[in-house]
Amino acid sequence: MPDYQAILQDIHSRNLAEKSDGQVASYIPGLAQVSPDQFGIHLRTASGEDFSMGDSETQFSIQSISKVLLLAMVASTEGDEIWERVGVEASGDPFNSLVQLEYEKGIPRNPFINAGALVICDILLGLYDDPESDFLNFVRQISGIPDVRYDQSVAESEREVAFQNLAMLNLMKGFGNIHHEVDAVIRFYCAACSISMSCHGLTHAFALFMNHGKLDSGEEILTINKAKRINALMQTCGFYDESGEFSFCVGLPGKSGVGGGIAAVNPGRYSVVAWSPRLNAKGNSAAGLRALRRLTDLTGNSIF
Amino acid sequence: MPDYQAILQDIHSRNLAEKSDGQVASYIPGLAQVSPDQFGIHLRTASGEDFSMGDSETQFSIQSISKVLLLAMVASTEGDEIWERVGVEASGDPFNSLVQLEYEKGIPRNPFINAGALVICDILLGLYDDPESDFLNFVRQISGIPDVRYDQSVAESEREVAFQNLAMLNLMKGFGNIHHEVDAVIRFYCAACSISMSCHGLTHAFALFMNHGKLDSGEEILTINKAKRINALMQTCGFYDESGEFSFCVGLPGKSGVGGGIAAVNPGRYSVVAWSPRLNAKGNSAAGLRALRRLTDLTGNSIF
Amino acid sequence: MPDYQAILQDIHSRNLAEKSDGQVASYIPGLAQVSPDQFGIHLRTASGEDFSMGDSETQFSIQSISKVLLLAMVASTEGDEIWERVGVEASGDPFNSLVQLEYEKGIPRNPFINAGALVICDILLGLYDDPESDFLNFVRQISGIPDVRYDQSVAESEREVAFQNLAMLNLMKGFGNIHHEVDAVIRFYCAACSISMSCHGLTHAFALFMNHGKLDSGEEILTINKAKRINALMQTCGFYDESGEFSFCVGLPGKSGVGGGIAAVNPGRYSVVAWSPRLNAKGNSAAGLRALRRLTDLTGNSIF
Amino acid sequence: MPDYQAILQDIHSRNLAEKSDGQVASYIPGLAQVSPDQFGIHLRTASGEDFSMGDSETQFSIQSISKVLLLAMVASTEGDEIWERVGVEASGDPFNSLVQLEYEKGIPRNPFINAGALVICDILLGLYDDPESDFLNFVRQISGIPDVRYDQSVAESEREVAFQNLAMLNLMKGFGNIHHEVDAVIRFYCAACSISMSCHGLTHAFALFMNHGKLDSGEEILTINKAKRINALMQTCGFYDESGEFSFCVGLPGKSGVGGGIAAVNPGRYSVVAWSPRLNAKGNSAAGLRALRRLTDLTGNSIF
Repeated sequence: MPDYQAILQDIHSRNLAEKSDGQVASYIPGLAQVSPDQFGIHLRTASGEDFSMGDSETQFSIQSISKVLLLAMVASTEGDEIWERVGVEASGDPFNSLVQLEYEKGIPRNPFINAGALVICDILLGLYDDPESDFLNFVRQISGIPDVRYDQSVAESEREVAFQNLAMLNLMKGFGNIHHEVDAVIRFYCAACSISMSCHGLTHAFALFMNHGKLDSGEEILTINKAKRINALMQTCGFYDESGEFSFCVGLPGKSGVGGGIAAVNPGRYSVVAWSPRLNAKGNSAAGLRALRRLTDLTGNSIF
Repeated sequence: MPDYQAILQDIHSRNLAEKSDGQVASYIPGLAQVSPDQFGIHLRTASGEDFSMGDSETQFSIQSISKVLLLAMVASTEGDEIWERVGVEASGDPFNSLVQLEYEKGIPRNPFINAGALVICDILLGLYDDPESDFLNFVRQISGIPDVRYDQSVAESEREVAFQNLAMLNLMKGFGNIHHEVDAVIRFYCAACSISMSCHGLTHAFALFMNHGKLDSGEEILTINKAKRINALMQTCGFYDESGEFSFCVGLPGKSGVGGGIAAVNPGRYSVVAWSPRLNAKGNSAAGLRALRRLTDLTGNSIF
Repeated sequence: MPDYQAILQDIHSRNLAEKSDGQVASYIPGLAQVSPDQFGIHLRTASGEDFSMGDSETQFSIQSISKVLLLAMVASTEGDEIWERVGVEASGDPFNSLVQLEYEKGIPRNPFINAGALVICDILLGLYDDPESDFLNFVRQISGIPDVRYDQSVAESEREVAFQNLAMLNLMKGFGNIHHEVDAVIRFYCAACSISMSCHGLTHAFALFMNHGKLDSGEEILTINKAKRINALMQTCGFYDESGEFSFCVGLPGKSGVGGGIAAVNPGRYSVVAWSPRLNAKGNSAAGLRALRRLTDLTGNSIF
Repeated sequence: MPDYQAILQDIHSRNLAEKSDGQVASYIPGLAQVSPDQFGIHLRTASGEDFSMGDSETQFSIQSISKVLLLAMVASTEGDEIWERVGVEASGDPFNSLVQLEYEKGIPRNPFINAGALVICDILLGLYDDPESDFLNFVRQISGIPDVRYDQSVAESEREVAFQNLAMLNLMKGFGNIHHEVDAVIRFYCAACSISMSCHGLTHAFALFMNHGKLDSGEEILTINKAKRINALMQTCGFYDESGEFSFCVGLPGKSGVGGGIAAVNPGRYSVVAWSPRLNAKGNSAAGLRALRRLTDLTGNSIF
């Protein structure tokens, strides 16, 4: 096993040396007010060891990383029928694009673009009586962290500027691919995005995907096949139109959020979350990408 | 002057001989229930003579033809500033396309596609205290027909299936090009589309564009320049992605609606409305197109 | 009849007062070397009177204006079968776009975008034994100017940088819509674009479209229907993605070229050519557009 | 280690039971004449053991699988500068699309779509004196098979119908991203596609990517980093717009060709080639996809 603590120290000290010049997401106050130069990283191995550096206990808004957790919740009960309503191909386009959605008759390219996650939320609305509460419990269960909470002010701010998502919801409803009220779907979606977690907590949640669908306790949340396929989707679709770049440079399945978090897994080896709020031009954490690239360069253990 | 009555008779008898195989618009009950093989035509000359054949007094849903009347109402008070929020180019795409709207940052290609008419409605909401009532009065004034009314059941049905328009409204609001509540804009837009008029009545309303912006009374509603420019827009953008075809085959400025109506003008000579509910693949009245093509073939007086 | 000479004088003196800041086309030396601030205008009435101002006798490269003459030559012998290989709708896209061509399976939107003119050239290659020579004779005939010539150095320069056109030719050949060798088509096309004429000469050539297809001698080159339809196409498609703008602001059928020329007609009244080399962002002569807009503002006689 | 021979037998007997209804590629005679129901599979482990079933020694046209070998050849000498001329993102579009290429100014999305492989060929033309001969030697070296040959009649047929590729080459040359003559690039590209190999031979060639860039002899052809990145590209871009589907269902880096071959690797474990000529709607071998899906289902050892 590599000396992960030494590697995280190296990553952290390099991060202090390199200045990131990206901007913090600014479209809602809850994100714009975050101190930009924070940096944390946490890594958990398959054998249950934890390593961390920097601001790894600071809570941040997980934003689109919640899309993986939403998909996991659906996949924990549903079968292949979900893939009739959402695809598994990379979008090749920025994250809010309506073009493909219209061209492809309301079937989103994959569950990790906004349109796809909105469909997943719509499915969950049909499966659970109180999906907001049930989703929180699901995240608490898989992370082992009992006090995960929604940030209501972030959720509300998101709803106020959710015009692109409302456009996509209406478009998909016109194509028959949204079954509930647009307002209910957007409410649940914005709540899910607003969850605050630390690098530490999120790494524990993502251990599920590193452990082929099982909790530390041995309980199976996802079959091995489903866990592998969620990893495959993260590999090809986890970083919007920078997914190929992440796969090329880092070589791990992962998912980013505009809050500056990036979660990734090396199946059978470790899960890892890096966080730093400044984003590059594609909306992914600049320092987070560098950190994970260095991690697989130093350990030599990408999945390829 | 050509013998218009003889020409309309010829058009009408040809129409009886030729079967149209298009379908009536079926997305709302108010349109789907219309008897499909009706056909009417009315022509009014610059000197005030009226000619008609067939079901020219039957009321039909004017639908998108209202887009010209909405633009005329805006143009009657506003200046060139409206052209900062909507373009004057043909869309080259089907009438509900979100692709261009996203690519062009929420500025619709022209006021005769849905997105453009929604922006015009949004402008009217800012100019008038009671735009629904004021628009009805405007149409009554220019047509000289005092009992023009909204068809409330058609308007309601339209609102229930207006997902594409809601998608576009939200998209444009995200770009800052819709200033009022999405619900208020869609309500006004659906009301405007629901107006019922006959070929006779609509021909009188369109006499405004034939008369360079003046009513029969001599009152100027639009300057000559504004009237000419509305005609130019009808010429290039009046028939969605069949606009070039209409210009090529008929050679007049005009506007179609999915209710089966087509209004056209030969500036300085006549206004004309043909109506027949069966639509071709592009959503324009099949028999109406044939009728107007024959009209300019027989009279030899297209604008070119 | 308006006092055309006074109007041209007004246009000319305004042009001297207003500075154009556009750039001369620079992708080939033959265009880049033209002195940028030249300006000429020539107008010929239906009754055969000629009016001119400025550099109206200076030869310039007609470039894309030749597309109208190529279409006229095809239309002078062929019937509606040409419209199976090229459309009549505005492109809504810049002039070199391959996107639509691929999406629409090798059928160009209209004969006035490059792809469409290439198809017209391909048709002419099948109709004439020596199309380069025959086309020159056709232009000489309709303009009444016996010494119209190709500018071989311009034609050669065009061929050397014709990558976009070669891409389109190969794409269309893949779809079966080009029947001759790509090299033969590009050679003829570049020759046609290279023709040099003055405002005076080109106005005489375009008199054909003002005169409903007849020469001054009364000889019919095009039927009235064909002449009207070529005008309709100029109206909707003559200025690439600025066609709506020209129709909206000038209100005449017309065609521009990157050499700085703009030819337009007011059917039954006059043909007119303005020329000035500086182009706006859309590739149309900035001063030429202003001149023609002023012409129809002052005469009040656009076609609408 | 799984019992690979038993697994290949299971795959083979299932293949006999399931009828594929796809069609053999028919655009050139050399592919159209292949007997459609052949099926072969060969697997080679990291420890050098070989397993095979069916027509695993039959030569077939490797077609686009050559794109991986071309990239490996470039990567064996060049550094990151090649990524300035070709991207690393999934295309999200069918394999001949010009749309993205135009939109992205002549920079192909990745080296495994046609446009990208054409750029790689153009780079190789600048690096080698006799690239056709040198590429053959490179494939012979990495596969250990001395008699690998081009199929000249296939190469010639390809060139005769290469209109889409010529369109893309001209487009990219217009953007400055092709440095050699279009004819030279297309010649080399069509030669590379025409290589005939068996499942057996191709599996040995792909062992390079399974072995992190080293030959059996221990000789390093690619650094471990470069080998991993080629695998990452195969993972995200190896199957045109079915790349996500392959990643999702099979979970291995791989590359398909219209000759019906699919090569894939499980890094550190095995390389595998399945071949069967009938293609699905996306242009990938129908039986080959089923075979590889079953392989990772049965072994449980996808990379995720």
